Amino acid sequence: MAGALVGVKPTPILEEELDIVIPTIRNLDFLEMWRPFFEPYHLIIVQDGDPSRTIKVPDGFDYELYNRNDINRILGPKASCISFKDSACRCFGYLVSKKKYIFTIDDDCFVAKDPSGKEINALEQHIKNLLNPSTPLFFNTLYDPYREGADFVRGYPFSLREGVPTAVSHGLWLNIPDYDAPTQLAKPLERNTRFVDAVLTIPKGTLFPMCGMNLAFNRELIGPAMYFGLMGDGQPIGRYDDMWAGWCMKVICDHLGYGVKTGLPYIWHSKASNPFVNLKKEYNGIFWQEELIPFFQSAVLTKECTTVQQCYIELSKQVKAKLGKIDPYFLKLADAMVTWVEAWDELNGKVDVDQQ
Amino acid sequence: MAGALVGVKPTPILEEELDIVIPTIRNLDFLEMWRPFFEPYHLIIVQDGDPSRTIKVPDGFDYELYNRNDINRILGPKASCISFKDSACRCFGYLVSKKKYIFTIDDDCFVAKDPSGKEINALEQHIKNLLNPSTPLFFNTLYDPYREGADFVRGYPFSLREGVPTAVSHGLWLNIPDYDAPTQLAKPLERNTRFVDAVLTIPKGTLFPMCGMNLAFNRELIGPAMYFGLMGDGQPIGRYDDMWAGWCMKVICDHLGYGVKTGLPYIWHSKASNPFVNLKKEYNGIFWQEELIPFFQSAVLTKECTTVQQCYIELSKQVKAKLGKIDPYFLKLADAMVTWVEAWDELNGKVDVDQQ
Repeated sequence: MAGALVGVKPTPILEEELDIVIPTIRNLDFLEMWRPFFEPYHLIIVQDGDPSRTIKVPDGFDYELYNRNDINRILGPKASCISFKDSACRCFGYLVSKKKYIFTIDDDCFVAKDPSGKEINALEQHIKNLLNPSTPLFFNTLYDPYREGADFVRGYPFSLREGVPTAVSHGLWLNIPDYDAPTQLAKPLERNTRFVDAVLTIPKGTLFPMCGMNLAFNRELIGPAMYFGLMGDGQPIGRYDDMWAGWCMKVICDHLGYGVKTGLPYIWHSKASNPFVNLKKEYNGIFWQEELIPFFQSAVLTKECTTVQQCYIELSKQVKAKLGKIDPYFLKLADAMVTWVEAWDELNGKVDVDQQ
Repeated sequence: MAGALVGVKPTPILEEELDIVIPTIRNLDFLEMWRPFFEPYHLIIVQDGDPSRTIKVPDGFDYELYNRNDINRILGPKASCISFKDSACRCFGYLVSKKKYIFTIDDDCFVAKDPSGKEINALEQHIKNLLNPSTPLFFNTLYDPYREGADFVRGYPFSLREGVPTAVSHGLWLNIPDYDAPTQLAKPLERNTRFVDAVLTIPKGTLFPMCGMNLAFNRELIGPAMYFGLMGDGQPIGRYDDMWAGWCMKVICDHLGYGVKTGLPYIWHSKASNPFVNLKKEYNGIFWQEELIPFFQSAVLTKECTTVQQCYIELSKQVKAKLGKIDPYFLKLADAMVTWVEAWDELNGKVDVDQQ
């Protein structure tokens, strides 16, 4: 419908400004289906697990691949902040990217179709979401007011219609929904078949569960807050990497005045992970999140925090002070948050010097 | 899709517990199209404008009709709180209803069709929205978690999955969108053609522009807050009746722990009102809303306010103290808010005594 309108601006593809980050333990055959959409872009592949294994990437893609040995070599002792045997390792890709935008996707995610049967260019929709402002200060009942065929409704203050810069675009999933292990166990056959044709801004002050399966963000605006935590091998928790990043990121976006969108685009999530394995990974998180949510809901950053790094370091102090008593894990995580920011500044600062 | 699922509970029609409130100045021919859906219900028609005019209601509907003479007779001096020559008069219908639920609809709204071409039973969807809980404390990315085929996603705290009671269900409009006069003037041809298949809870602490065209609420939970203000004849403002009610109601729902939903159901809004006339009505509101929104965003009700009436009286005091300086109109409005609550208690209190 919208496509039929005259004068709708085409979405730039930003092939020089966006990296696609993919964490994986297997050959990347899934890229074949994405070829028409991903081929113009540079891929950053973060190989998890056994570094001696060779991951095959289909011909014709422009990519760099990092395994655990590469991560250790590049980060030295700071490599301790990058998780192993958990998709949390993907954030290493954010660190080494030099681009303005990141799109990250799981290797069990395929191209979805819209209700008319047309294949969805997920990346194009993410770019649209990121290039258009967000509206976190007041809710618009017709959803994204910047979309073709939509606008701000009656009663929406005119002073808020410019919106704020968008930092994050959170896409959704058809077929296998992103459920936790208990819900997976209770509803093994549930599939998400509902295509909701909407993009909306998550209001200021509201937290949400951010999933890393189909996610894009403005690395310049919010990159240092997109740390996926300590998960997997040697840690008492897994599958909370994206949640952790989402809660930290949202508190910081709210403080700095950036927007976070959720909704379109959909990808096709092909297979459910094993709920029994998931339960083992999530077990602690299911308890801990009951205390994490009130913590993040009440977290306040001081006016002195004007950069993402400053916000993130301040948040790490609050994690140590307030969550450390739940479990010593959070003391370790708070330290890793600091290490992450140091690594970010080291790698990204170095580049600035090189480029001069 | 959802309809094909086994074991989905049918939605009760609640014909003994719900009144349909319609403000109008013309014959209610529009009811013909709604007949299959509205005939089981009792209608409360609030006739605006010249009371000597006769409004025709199609045969077969069970209704009571009130014109201005009736309002004056029933409320006496308190009738001053009910607007004249503005659809704000509809709230008189909420006052005289004795039912638990209210659905209110404008007489230029018709039955919409879903993308499959099926006529939408708007009232059934509103009832569904009102009978299922809301989730204002944390955002669920798959929208209404209580809907068939959906649930809470990974990372949603289990302690919040019971939700809270739903007070309000705000439905949307296909065809003519609910734009203000400046937007109508700028985009005379814009039509809403996007069917967004979602219901979502407006998060706690977030305000939205509530439209009275297609609206349902739990009168027992929130009725006394659904006052549509002083608009129209003799007032410096019009077309802000539903906005005013929405902002007051949302602050009170947030305080008392009730939920507000928006999204489905759609109705078909047939014709745009005259943007020049609208501009004249809205003119002051467009300025004033810039101060009203910050006022409502920062309004705090004390713990002592445990009933809707107490909350509303407290809010009226804050309106008088903080908005009175914008324009003397708000002093008058604050007084009318008190009169409204007195009228509510008088009419609804009396019933309690009669029933004993």
